[in-house]
Amino acid sequence: MADIINPRTLSGFMELLPKDQVIFDKIRGQLEKVYSMYGFFPLDTPILEDSKILLAKAGGETEKQIYRFNKGDSDLTMRFDLTVPLAKYVAKNYSELTFPFKRYQIGKVYRGERAQKGRFREFYQADIDIIGDEKLNIINDAEIPSIIFSLFHGLGIDDFVIRINNRKVLNGLYEILGLKDSATDIMRTIDKIDKIGRNNVVDELSEIGVDKNSIEELLSILLFKGQNTEIIDNLKSYIGKSETFDLGIEELQTVVDYIGVFGVPSNYYSIDLSIARGLDYYTGTVYETFIKKHPEYGSVCSGGRYDNLAEYYTTKSLPGVGISIGLTRLFYVLCENEFLNRKLENPVEVLVIPMTEDVSYAVRVASIFRERGISTQIYLEEGKFKKKMSYGNKLSIPFCVLLGEDELDNEKVTIKNMNTGEQYTDSIDIALDIVLSQKLENERVVIM
Amino acid sequence: MADIINPRTLSGFMELLPKDQVIFDKIRGQLEKVYSMYGFFPLDTPILEDSKILLAKAGGETEKQIYRFNKGDSDLTMRFDLTVPLAKYVAKNYSELTFPFKRYQIGKVYRGERAQKGRFREFYQADIDIIGDEKLNIINDAEIPSIIFSLFHGLGIDDFVIRINNRKVLNGLYEILGLKDSATDIMRTIDKIDKIGRNNVVDELSEIGVDKNSIEELLSILLFKGQNTEIIDNLKSYIGKSETFDLGIEELQTVVDYIGVFGVPSNYYSIDLSIARGLDYYTGTVYETFIKKHPEYGSVCSGGRYDNLAEYYTTKSLPGVGISIGLTRLFYVLCENEFLNRKLENPVEVLVIPMTEDVSYAVRVASIFRERGISTQIYLEEGKFKKKMSYGNKLSIPFCVLLGEDELDNEKVTIKNMNTGEQYTDSIDIALDIVLSQKLENERVVIM
Repeated sequence: MADIINPRTLSGFMELLPKDQVIFDKIRGQLEKVYSMYGFFPLDTPILEDSKILLAKAGGETEKQIYRFNKGDSDLTMRFDLTVPLAKYVAKNYSELTFPFKRYQIGKVYRGERAQKGRFREFYQADIDIIGDEKLNIINDAEIPSIIFSLFHGLGIDDFVIRINNRKVLNGLYEILGLKDSATDIMRTIDKIDKIGRNNVVDELSEIGVDKNSIEELLSILLFKGQNTEIIDNLKSYIGKSETFDLGIEELQTVVDYIGVFGVPSNYYSIDLSIARGLDYYTGTVYETFIKKHPEYGSVCSGGRYDNLAEYYTTKSLPGVGISIGLTRLFYVLCENEFLNRKLENPVEVLVIPMTEDVSYAVRVASIFRERGISTQIYLEEGKFKKKMSYGNKLSIPFCVLLGEDELDNEKVTIKNMNTGEQYTDSIDIALDIVLSQKLENERVVIM
Repeated sequence: MADIINPRTLSGFMELLPKDQVIFDKIRGQLEKVYSMYGFFPLDTPILEDSKILLAKAGGETEKQIYRFNKGDSDLTMRFDLTVPLAKYVAKNYSELTFPFKRYQIGKVYRGERAQKGRFREFYQADIDIIGDEKLNIINDAEIPSIIFSLFHGLGIDDFVIRINNRKVLNGLYEILGLKDSATDIMRTIDKIDKIGRNNVVDELSEIGVDKNSIEELLSILLFKGQNTEIIDNLKSYIGKSETFDLGIEELQTVVDYIGVFGVPSNYYSIDLSIARGLDYYTGTVYETFIKKHPEYGSVCSGGRYDNLAEYYTTKSLPGVGISIGLTRLFYVLCENEFLNRKLENPVEVLVIPMTEDVSYAVRVASIFRERGISTQIYLEEGKFKKKMSYGNKLSIPFCVLLGEDELDNEKVTIKNMNTGEQYTDSIDIALDIVLSQKLENERVVIM
């Protein structure tokens, strides 16, 4: 016999036990369902790409974090997000696509960083984007929050809020306040306010060189709390001083007005001028989504509007709007906090247990159940009755169908509800009805 | 502006256009549905593993074909199949799993070989396995063909046959004929008979050193054509001469008897003693699946029974039975032969086209359609009516809902069937009924 190698999985690479995997797949399925419902096409791109393609834009920081290697003459990199592959795809297939092009992609991405709690080296992202050819109507930006709402609501997550801002509003403000040159640094600092608090933000802004009055004015605007209309009213005194700002206000107003039309209840979204998203990439609307009771999770779904998806691969102007969910991280957080609906952890609804040597009757009964759309497994192994029932128990299968000589002779089945312990001997049809009537109605994956 | 990089995809890496991706995903969804229906749990393992784990068994040939690289101190390999990761997983999580453990996995695997037509470097495999602890009932081997049948039948592929053999029967025969030492070479040669023909097989067997009489006897047994019972009868004269052979015959008989009980019509399976599967790994039942009209595709779904899944990672004995589908290759073949049901190539069922500046009514109508489970997109871009309709046409969306001032004022919609050209102005409810009644009933993904 060969030497035994210790079976381990690389750290930072999630590998779930079956009961968790079932629930993960339900979440993934729910995302696919909602995305399709809104007219997004699925997309699947390679995990490996030519390094020249993936690193077209990347700076030194990205380079350090990636899995890059040579194979023969090829310099290859494992994708680190789903945006760069999308950009390449749209540029490559431009003439074959119909714009606006709406796509979703749920796939694994790779970051070679040091693994730590809650950080993964291999993880799923779930992205949607709407890409326009030359232009894309601002109302698309208002549809995105309704998709986030449907998504989270459908999963059973009700305690969340989508925070919305507009980068043009911010850029315009910096222009008006004479802070344009340090805008990126300022935004990055203010983005940290939930983590480091107002006082530290003030200190850091001073260090950047922003004068005290400007800091006060800026923070009084950006941190102003109120209804969406109040926040916009509070900005109106700046109108007419910067084209960028004026355009931003108009966009923000349109987006906020339409989100309600798209059916998102008003307590699920609010303007928050302090969010900016770190990336320079965004040029208009930006979104972040927070679990209200758990702001410490950070944003669980973020994105925004950009002017140019694929400038590294084409001269065509391709504006778009999109969001991304860090699915692995979200799952991990829900799991750790025991928010997952454990009733969903088994895909099998019925375990058929034959108690005769010839299992033909069991096979026939199982086929009838499957024909009615009930996921059914036959326990085919030999062993005592107790061992067979224990299999059903360990897998939390809701119903066992017991088939002995009596059942076989009378074309009946004995069906046992494993949760209540109730047991009936009846016709196959009646057993079917019992299972179908109890079929889990509660498809909420998350209970919080 | 940055230099433009030519957006290309590595050769051997499949990247589909949206309409093809939709159909690919339907096939994948059908597999998941059938696997779940038979009680298999989903599994997802990392694409990257420690090389020591993945290459525990591998010989030189595998080493050449893999993507292996170093990152920091780690020696990493991209998985080249789903079997080795399963073996590691079961050994690692042995105490957490309930046996028999039934899992399916549909995922990408990587082979660094030279890309050529029909060969992929990144491709999907779809595997199912049933793993026992110490033992696993032979009747499981009879359930597998019923899963293959459900799978292909559900996709719309009806023109196929599952060929079944048993390695113990073959090994027993080689033992009886005194050919045990060259058994592996002989099996490999006979496996090629469809490709190279009987005469070449005879020549090659002579070269291996098998004497003429043995060749004739062997081929007359292995290539004997007839009903399953006739084939088994033809073997009966060898009974009592080898324990392995006797056990093999018993297994083969049980499997063939039960396949019918599992509901597979007799014209969909047959014993074929000439198939062996190349791998030493298999120790009992083996399967191959052929499209009857296209034997040149080779086997599109293969597998078998093995004694020991995870001997490199544990001293536990873990016998199992499983099959694998090369999903990317199967898709490619179906696509090339125009077997795909092109009616399924768009996920969007309704395109709502507002013809007023305020699109609120369109948003409301779209929400109502989605609530009824109809995938609905709103065309939000500005432009002439013709351009908007052309969008629906290009994407082959079956229904357009047109909303002008008249519709808005009267709370009506104009619905146009894009296939027939018929157009009605009616209430939202009636439009819903029209779409729901025409909702594609034909979910067969393959038309052959």
